[in-house]
Amino acid sequence: MNTLFKKSFLKKMAKKEKVTPEFLEAGLKQGTIVIPQNKNKELESPAAIGEGLKVKLNTNLGTSSEQAELKEEKKKLATAVKYGTDAIMDLSTGPQLKKVLKEIIKASPVPVGTVPIYQAALDAEKKYGEFEKMTKDDLMQALIFQAEAGVDFFTIHAGIRKYFLDILDKQRRTAGIVSRGGAILARWMFVHKQENPLYEYFDEVLDIARKYNITISLGDALRPGALADSTDRLQMKELEVLSGLVRRCWEKKVQVMVEGPGHIKIDEIEFNMQIEKKLCRKAPFYILGPLTTDIFFGYDHIVSAIGGAIAARAGANFLCVVTPAEHLRQPSAEDIKMGVIASRIAAHSVDLLKFKDELEKDKKLSLARAKRDWNEVFTYSIDREKAEEYRAAKKISTEDVCSMCGKLCSLKLIDKCDLLK
Amino acid sequence: MNTLFKKSFLKKMAKKEKVTPEFLEAGLKQGTIVIPQNKNKELESPAAIGEGLKVKLNTNLGTSSEQAELKEEKKKLATAVKYGTDAIMDLSTGPQLKKVLKEIIKASPVPVGTVPIYQAALDAEKKYGEFEKMTKDDLMQALIFQAEAGVDFFTIHAGIRKYFLDILDKQRRTAGIVSRGGAILARWMFVHKQENPLYEYFDEVLDIARKYNITISLGDALRPGALADSTDRLQMKELEVLSGLVRRCWEKKVQVMVEGPGHIKIDEIEFNMQIEKKLCRKAPFYILGPLTTDIFFGYDHIVSAIGGAIAARAGANFLCVVTPAEHLRQPSAEDIKMGVIASRIAAHSVDLLKFKDELEKDKKLSLARAKRDWNEVFTYSIDREKAEEYRAAKKISTEDVCSMCGKLCSLKLIDKCDLLK
Repeated sequence: MNTLFKKSFLKKMAKKEKVTPEFLEAGLKQGTIVIPQNKNKELESPAAIGEGLKVKLNTNLGTSSEQAELKEEKKKLATAVKYGTDAIMDLSTGPQLKKVLKEIIKASPVPVGTVPIYQAALDAEKKYGEFEKMTKDDLMQALIFQAEAGVDFFTIHAGIRKYFLDILDKQRRTAGIVSRGGAILARWMFVHKQENPLYEYFDEVLDIARKYNITISLGDALRPGALADSTDRLQMKELEVLSGLVRRCWEKKVQVMVEGPGHIKIDEIEFNMQIEKKLCRKAPFYILGPLTTDIFFGYDHIVSAIGGAIAARAGANFLCVVTPAEHLRQPSAEDIKMGVIASRIAAHSVDLLKFKDELEKDKKLSLARAKRDWNEVFTYSIDREKAEEYRAAKKISTEDVCSMCGKLCSLKLIDKCDLLK
Repeated sequence: MNTLFKKSFLKKMAKKEKVTPEFLEAGLKQGTIVIPQNKNKELESPAAIGEGLKVKLNTNLGTSSEQAELKEEKKKLATAVKYGTDAIMDLSTGPQLKKVLKEIIKASPVPVGTVPIYQAALDAEKKYGEFEKMTKDDLMQALIFQAEAGVDFFTIHAGIRKYFLDILDKQRRTAGIVSRGGAILARWMFVHKQENPLYEYFDEVLDIARKYNITISLGDALRPGALADSTDRLQMKELEVLSGLVRRCWEKKVQVMVEGPGHIKIDEIEFNMQIEKKLCRKAPFYILGPLTTDIFFGYDHIVSAIGGAIAARAGANFLCVVTPAEHLRQPSAEDIKMGVIASRIAAHSVDLLKFKDELEKDKKLSLARAKRDWNEVFTYSIDREKAEEYRAAKKISTEDVCSMCGKLCSLKLIDKCDLLK
């Protein structure tokens, strides 16, 4: 695959990624690496995603019919970037979503993704009174509008086929379809008794993507939304379809990544990563979780950190941040912060195995900790404010220890024996 | 090994654990299962820990020289029990620690563990002006006092030998010794140039343990306190010593479990569990983490949830709760809550693979979620208050959906097609 990137750009990206330009270029050619970057703009902080690179994070933002303030979304964007997201998705479905999208693209230093069918469905609702009347042309118009606006990657749910609905009808999953785009398409196919237009007209989608150098992110409409549906027949059937679509993207010289689950039992995560990598010929894997349990509402950022770390170690390349608000409400900026930090823990825990600069961070902090040099400890901490606040919350009589061990500080005792590094 | 439990008690415990009494008894005999329970009292909620059972949690409480209010510790105890801890350890090192211990034992429905060397060291400090003057007899007196008070399990750091200090001197670990008990003993050996009294007089320790049916938890004084020290020579040397001590416990008919790391790289967790299980002949493994990165101060409950889940899947039986306050301060009751919930996520994610009653919880919640029956969802949620508060925080125009997807709720769309269970 020939990509549309200039040599100078790739050189800069390779330096940022701590790999050689040759490695990066080879990955792009083979399709194992993507760089989402709309041809019509230049990102302040582009990201390369894929095999042999550090694990990347995406954070979902966006208005809904229930809450639609642009200011709030911009605050979420700034928070996600501050704590280290590598990309964001604007999933707005509130009023004026086109204006919101343009503003978010303008404000974002990192790549911006969307699910264009949201806009298509909402435009159709306005036009015809119900979104189900959306036509294929409405869909393509939404894609072109967003491509022009500067979107860097599109989630395209082309893998859910019409005949899957019969299987869904027989199988009766516990949580049906939890993908919003997938559910819109399922409902559309159910009403029209016609094939998924994103599948039927996939070539037209690719033409738009190629023209603007937009990366396709193949959506997993049938990702399991409950452990009871983990790695079921429907999930696997869709993955087979996605496998074929990856090849079609590459044939049209379009960058592509694949989206994955979802709610997955902890002992099924590794093979889920392996089967995707195998069937999709090592296309980058972008995962939404995985969540290893359904019952910790309010704490799904922690659940996702567990699943994400195991998945990243087994080959996942791009983690979608899950916030404590998952399943409950639209996230606040504080929820976004919690989610990004939890996902960074997962990513960093895996990155440090391969990248010396990552492991060095842990070493520096631990050396400072052993010396009880708190200022240095805070300097290397991800969330300096929280660490300082925690320490300050309890009075300490001896300056260099903490309130946990007090004068029985193990590190201080060993230091007294001159047994520290 | 003959245990001191009555048949009727074992029958009750087997029912609670959802295993057969024969299985439980066989595990106790082989030493792969322990039930910490002081002979002189009856616990309201005893716990069996080991092979083939659900993963159990311990929560550390206790005063320090910096904060020593009994009321606060009782609040932490109640919080830990409310959110599902199976045991607690009173690690008090503040003034009046004997009184605190007695009150905690009186108030605790779950087994209570201690590290008796803390009391011995602090008594010695009072008696002689410095804890380093502690004698072997001071140590044994602390053990007997705590055994009489009703402690159910003792952490005994008998695995750190005098000659290890020379290795420590040469190796110069990044974080030296991070075990408080281990550091006290290292300092003592450094000053006295004598062998670790807990190792030298291990038989006397066992006599006390046998007399009161106290479970020995072999402490890992040399657990790595930084990723740079992960699975190093010192950690392995101590594990070898612990392997021999397990056999000695069994010979004296004393229940025993083994404590483990610590700060461990994510790709070293599985084999750490395997080597312990192998060398210690499947004695229950009680782990303190593992933490897969050093740099997330304020978020170590999440780091520990990742390590704990991977470890539990690989055979760890007992997880020590790590709170957001780890490395920074003595935890508050709120910190304890966050820590217990994070550890429960790890334990539950693994338990549901084997235990139907655990998986059933996830299924019930997800079915309720698919029907948008929020009251039922909250009923099955671990932290009902938080889940309700999250949902209530944003106004919702349509009652059955949430503010994330609003009217584009995927579950509602699929329900409209009559494709839900």
